[in-house]
Parts: sequence; C-alpha cells; structure tokens
Amino acid sequence: MAETDLDERVFETPLQGEGEQFDEENRLKPEFIRQVRESLRDDNEDSTYDLVEPLHPADIADLFELFDRDDRSVLAAAITDLMSGEVIAELNDYVREDMLESLPPEAVASIVEQLETDDAVQLIEDLDLTDQRAILAEVEPEDRAAIENALAYPEETAGRLMQRELVAVPESMNVGDLIDYLRREDQLITDFWEIFVVDHRFHPVGSCQLSWILRTPRDIALTDVMKRDQTLIPVDMDQEEVALRFQKYALISAAVVDESGRLVGQITVDDMVHIISEEAGEDALLMSGAGEGDINEPLRDAYSARVRWLIANLGTAVVASAIIAFFGAAIEQLVALAVLMPIVASIGGNAGTQTMAVTIRAIAMNQLTRSNTKRILLRELKVAIMNGVTVAILIGIATALLFTPELGAVIAAAMVVNIVISGLAGVLVPVAFERMGQDPAVASSVFVTMITDSMGFFAFLGLAVAAGLAGM
Amino acid sequence: MAETDLDERVFETPLQGEGEQFDEENRLKPEFIRQVRESLRDDNEDSTYDLVEPLHPADIADLFELFDRDDRSVLAAAITDLMSGEVIAELNDYVREDMLESLPPEAVASIVEQLETDDAVQLIEDLDLTDQRAILAEVEPEDRAAIENALAYPEETAGRLMQRELVAVPESMNVGDLIDYLRREDQLITDFWEIFVVDHRFHPVGSCQLSWILRTPRDIALTDVMKRDQTLIPVDMDQEEVALRFQKYALISAAVVDESGRLVGQITVDDMVHIISEEAGEDALLMSGAGEGDINEPLRDAYSARVRWLIANLGTAVVASAIIAFFGAAIEQLVALAVLMPIVASIGGNAGTQTMAVTIRAIAMNQLTRSNTKRILLRELKVAIMNGVTVAILIGIATALLFTPELGAVIAAAMVVNIVISGLAGVLVPVAFERMGQDPAVASSVFVTMITDSMGFFAFLGLAVAAGLAGM
Repeated sequence: MAETDLDERVFETPLQGEGEQFDEENRLKPEFIRQVRESLRDDNEDSTYDLVEPLHPADIADLFELFDRDDRSVLAAAITDLMSGEVIAELNDYVREDMLESLPPEAVASIVEQLETDDAVQLIEDLDLTDQRAILAEVEPEDRAAIENALAYPEETAGRLMQRELVAVPESMNVGDLIDYLRREDQLITDFWEIFVVDHRFHPVGSCQLSWILRTPRDIALTDVMKRDQTLIPVDMDQEEVALRFQKYALISAAVVDESGRLVGQITVDDMVHIISEEAGEDALLMSGAGEGDINEPLRDAYSARVRWLIANLGTAVVASAIIAFFGAAIEQLVALAVLMPIVASIGGNAGTQTMAVTIRAIAMNQLTRSNTKRILLRELKVAIMNGVTVAILIGIATALLFTPELGAVIAAAMVVNIVISGLAGVLVPVAFERMGQDPAVASSVFVTMITDSMGFFAFLGLAVAAGLAGM
Repeated sequence: MAETDLDERVFETPLQGEGEQFDEENRLKPEFIRQVRESLRDDNEDSTYDLVEPLHPADIADLFELFDRDDRSVLAAAITDLMSGEVIAELNDYVREDMLESLPPEAVASIVEQLETDDAVQLIEDLDLTDQRAILAEVEPEDRAAIENALAYPEETAGRLMQRELVAVPESMNVGDLIDYLRREDQLITDFWEIFVVDHRFHPVGSCQLSWILRTPRDIALTDVMKRDQTLIPVDMDQEEVALRFQKYALISAAVVDESGRLVGQITVDDMVHIISEEAGEDALLMSGAGEGDINEPLRDAYSARVRWLIANLGTAVVASAIIAFFGAAIEQLVALAVLMPIVASIGGNAGTQTMAVTIRAIAMNQLTRSNTKRILLRELKVAIMNGVTVAILIGIATALLFTPELGAVIAAAMVVNIVISGLAGVLVPVAFERMGQDPAVASSVFVTMITDSMGFFAFLGLAVAAGLAGM
C-alpha cells in the first residue's frame, strides 16, 4: 500500500498554509469556515469542493475539527473525493473515531488500504473489536496480515508505531547496485530517508543516509558508506522512550527489531514529532488532573477523568479542614486567624507546584537521575529558603501594620516553614513516584497539595497558639 | 565548516545508548558516573578517557550535566580530545554557557568552526557581547560573516535557527546532472534530506526528497520530480510557529527565505524536535510560574523567576482574605464557616486549573480559534455543571451529617456556583489573553486563581449569611 505514482505526485500541489484562507498563525480564518458552512447550507457541492480542494490534507483535517459534530458528516459527503486516507490520518483521534463509526466497513477498508501500516493501525486501533473485525475482513489479505501483526503489539509501543514498508539491502551491494535496485523495483515505497543494510539473517548491520549514497561513486561498497552503530528500537519499547531516543540522537529514521534481532520495521521522525509534542504537553494536563485534556474528547470521558481528580482533592481538602477544626477554639477567639490562614496555604501551594513542575519536567527529560537527586534537592531547598524569606518579610510587615506585630511574626514564620516544606515535597514526591514506577505527573499533585495545605494551616494556627495569641 | 570526510565518518562508531553504561531508560547508570568520578579523583586520565570514549556525544553531554559544577572542568580537561563541537552543542544551555565562560576565546572559536551555523549561533548567542566579539575575532572570516548574519535576526526566529549550508540547484538540471554534481562538489555538506530547486533569482521553485531522486532514471528533469508546493519559512518567523508547521505538515526540512523570497537557509527536523518538545513542555512550567524551570538554571535566576510569581499570588490571596474579613462577624458566630470555607475555594481552584490547562493546550496547538470558541465554552460549561453537581452532593451530604443540613445545603450550592465560575474563567481568561497577544500560559494562572479563591469564599460565606446561618 501507499505507493504513489511519480507523475501523479508532481501535480498534487497542496497549498501549505500560505493562502488567503489562513490567518498569520496558519489557522483557517473564521471567514473561510463561514464560507464553507454557507456553501454547505446552500447545498452547493461544487462550490464547497472548490473551496476545500486547494487545501493540504492536514488543513482539511483542521477544517473538520473546527466544524460542529453534526456538520462534519455533511461536509464529508460533499467532498468525498478529497477525503483521502491522509486527511483521515491527520484527524484528531476522537473526531476520527466518531466519523469512522458512521461509515460502512467497506468504506473504512478502502481508506485503510491507502495508508502505510502505521497510519492504518492508528486509524483502527481505537475502534471496538467488532468494528475492527468487520473492517479487516474487507481489507486485502496482505495488508490485513500486516495490520493484525501490528495490533498484536501492546498499545503505545514501537510495534504499533512502526511502518513495515522500508528499504533493506544485503551487505554485498555497492552504491551502483543500490541505485539500480531502487530504480528497478517499482514495488518500493516512495518516501524514505535512510536505507538499512542487513545480513543474511535480516539483522541490521548498518544504515545509510541517502545523502551519503548520492555523494559516493558507484563502485564503493555500501559497507564502506554506512554507519555501523545505530539506535535499534526493540518492538516492545514504549513510545515515550522511542521519542526520547529520537530527540537525544537527532534521528530521522530508526530500525525496529524483534526479540531475535531481525529487522521488522522502521520508525520515521515525522511520526515521532506528534508523539514528542504529545508526551511533552501532556504533563501540564496530567498535573492539573485534566486527563487527556483534548477539546474533542467526548463529554462523559472529560467528566469522568476530571471528577475523579476533584473527588481526590476533596479528600485532601477535608484533611486540611480537620486541622482547622482542631484549632476551632483559637479561631473563635481571634477571627484574624481565619482571615489570614488561607494566605499561608495558598502561597505554599504555589511554591510546591513550581518545584513539582520543574522536577517532573526534569524526570521526563531524563535529566534527573539517582546521580544528581541530592544536588537538585539541595538546590530547591536553597530556592525555597530565599523565596520563603522574601514572601515572609512582605506578609509579615503588612500583617504587623494591619493587625498586630505578634501576628505579623507568626505569619512570617509560618510562611517560611510552609514554603520550605513545599519545596522539599515538590522534589521528593515526584522522585518517589518515579522510583516506584508510577508516572509522577499523574500522582504527585494530590500529595503535594495535601502537604502544602495541611502544613500551611497547621504551621500558622499552631504557631499562633504556641505564641499565646489564642488559646485552644 | 562541518564537512565530514566520508572515510572518517565510517569509523566514528559511537554507542547509542545500548551499552552497559545505561539503565533500561537510556540514562547513564549511577555506577558508571561513580566510576568516572573515581578515575578523575585518582588523576587517571587514560582510564577516564577509556570510559568516556565509547559514548555518543549526546551521552557525553549528559555526563557533564550529571556532574557537579566544580567537577565539570576537571572532566573537560581529562577528555579534551572528546570535547567535540557536537558535545558542546548537545549541552544544556546553562551548563554550556558556564563552561564556555571558563575557556579562552581561541578555544571557543575552534569549537565554533567545527559546527554548522545553527549550532554555532546557539553556542554563542547567550554569551555577553564582549565575549561574543572576542570569540568571533578568532573565527575564520567566512564563518564569522555567516554567524554575524544569523545573530542579526531576533532571538527565537527562523533566521537564528536555520543552517546556511544546503544543496540548491538550478531548474535546468536533470536527475543525472544532479547526481554528478553531488559526487563532484566536495565542498557540499554531507547530511541533507532534500535538495532545493531554485530559479535564476535564487527563489525556491520546488524541493526534492532524495528518495525520489534515487528512484528516478537519470534523464528525467528535476522539475518533473520535485514537489512545487512547499512550506517556505520566512526568516523572521517565530520558532514556535516554525515548530507547528513542521508538526502539521510532517516536514523533514524546509527552505527559509528572506523578504525578497530568496533562499537563504534551511531548517531540518532534527533541530526542530528539541524546540517542539521545549515549546510543548514549557506550558506546565509557565502555568506554575516556574519560569524556564531548568534544573541547571543559576539559583538567582530561578529565585527571581519564581518569587515574582509568588508575590503576584500573595496579592490575589490578600484579595481573598479581604472577602473573608468582610464576613468576620459571621465566622465569629459560626466557626464551622472557617473550617469549611477552604474546601470550596480549593476544589474551585482545581476545577479552574483543569479547564485552563485544556484551553491553553488547545490554543498552543492551534485547535482553538474564533470559529469554535463558543462551542468549547459551552462544552466546558457542561463539564463544570456535571462536576459541580457531583462534588456538591458529596460535600453536601458529609456536611449535613457532621454539621447541620442547612450548612450542607449552603456548601453544596456554593460549590456548584464556584465550579461553574471556575470553568468559565478557565476558558475565558486564556482566550482573552491570547486575543490581546499575550502568552496565555504565563498570564492566566494568577487571574484564574484569584477568581476561584475569591468567589469560593464569597459564595460560601455570602450564602451562609443569606440563609440566616450567621449575621454580619
């Protein structure tokens, strides 16, 4: 699948975000969306087609996402010819799933056959099993086998991501042989960035960038041009790991090997950029407890992902409340305590979140390991003391002026204590989760918040009682 | 600069994260770090060299980052031969700046000359002007001109990112001419992924993937192989925009053009993956107010970035406090209000952060535009109502049992109000900042927090007074 005829390719000339349909940030303009919507409403299929036809598949996909759910199928019907596999592959996961569910299996199968294995797999992996089977039954046996094979690997592993189509040649070839082979074999893929050199067991022994081949005379052996050391990706490697290798070693493509070391596929960087961006961007969503955090996620999924987290936080808020209740008598005597206590908890919470965000990012980027944890902890402790003292002076003076000097001293001391504890928790909690094999971005927030809230109330109210400002 | 001799390249065989020095996540093992540290302490330069020599430049860079600041210069002195431009280019910005400042200008200049323009620029752009001048004075005139030219573009634009080295050929060539040219010209770069076809004014008219060239007979004209429509990057485009184009159109390399449309450089995807990851990852840091959030950032920078934010939040906390003070009399009569009020504020804050994280991510990915803002706002409102009702029922029942049914009703109502307001603020605040041309990740948190805190206290205490549970 996915062989493009060379002649055809030349005349496929999609606009890439440069036309009048786009604003300065490469987004489709609201006026353009309105034009398309109006021509759909007027039932004018020709004019809709003419509007959409100049767009790149990625922009047609954007257009669908900007449309309301009900309008999407109307649009799809009006521009069926433009609904290439590439458009479908570029769609947001949720939008795609929704659209595919409304199509008959034969229609989906014909889209699947246009795609390379990795895109075909991505397209059907989220559908339920019955739908998958119905679609696969309509796909050509050879493609079906490739897809079923990929689906046998766990989700989010190299086996799912890789494409099976690649160029692999024996060690015995020289540059001239290779060029002749590439010109002769019309079943080869059109787009590739490196060729893989394999031994008789189909184990990769090296890889060659195409630029090296083009710069080398025909009679030089491939084994003299290729790079022997390469990053081999095991089929079962997690996609996050694969993304880190691509970043670290600046890879354009990499060979995927099975347990026995046989070359079974390749992963190319254009597929990895989505995953790199997703993995880097998801931490903000995970830390806030927003789950997938996709604006196209169905309402019930967004609700269940977020409410779970809110309920967990309700638990931590109740713990903090219990601490306040314990000091109830003191608050009754001095209501200023109730007025000021949220300040200590809130600023502590902020300081904790700052440190936690830094720590989680460093863990994700493999920058924080056992070798430097102590140094980073010490560093964060210093920052926390500096922050704590600064904030304490400000709030201490303000409180001394508005209330009493004693209360100013108490809130200043509580603030230093809470910010330092927050700083330590912001490092130690994510590091602990990471060592236990948990994703620190998911699990840390609830604990750090609980610590900073509880300690904020406890330090402030406890110090006030200890200083004799109120009794218990 | 940066021409690699083909023969030399074959024998450069760096290990790529596969050796015994690595743990299963491709991080250097603590035992390996300890070994290197000990051999340095024993003044055994040969053994240090032997340990480090098999590593890939990116891993040598990691090794430096894992070392304490004082040990880094000792390590650098022990392995001078391995301190290639590539290692330096792979170093974290702060670690690199620190190391370069300790080297004489001639030494830095000789590193600069090994690098392609983009890496050379990245290396010296953060140094202060006097250091830059001293280094550039030692660099070969031709390289110096290229670097000064790049430095003339604003930071974080395509002009800074691009490399000037590229392969551009006239429209009149056929495939055979091109291959002959690539084999003949020994001044060309070694690593490239596409060639650019230009007209007589050096304006790009098309681009060719190398695989297309290799699959085409010699007598076919390049203009029949190339793709005419391509994403041209203006020199002054912001790097975030460039990153989004690379992601959206799955680019491997792209031509950079000046104001007159002349081809002046290229950007390749291996440089973009770092930026894609950085731009996607920084939102979590910005939202928490942790600034750059790099664990190698100097202490004073980390302090000043974070304390600014804590002081801003101190302001918002004081606003919330003022609302509590306004209801001081009510709290004195019913201390349960003080016990429960942080729960309403805290859960509201969480719900607001969830919505804000989702909105900011969607804005960053160009998914949220004027065309769908209303739909997304409506969606978030629905999620907020569902979340609000769920949490309200739980906390309402618990409060009714532990305190009074009236207080239960009041806290439940306040919770729904605050979560709905938080949901609206979580969408509207970032969207407003984006429309004003501000980065929503930087500015939104402080406002969303202020709204959710203040409204939490106001709704709960106000409803309690309105319900007659306490007087004012």
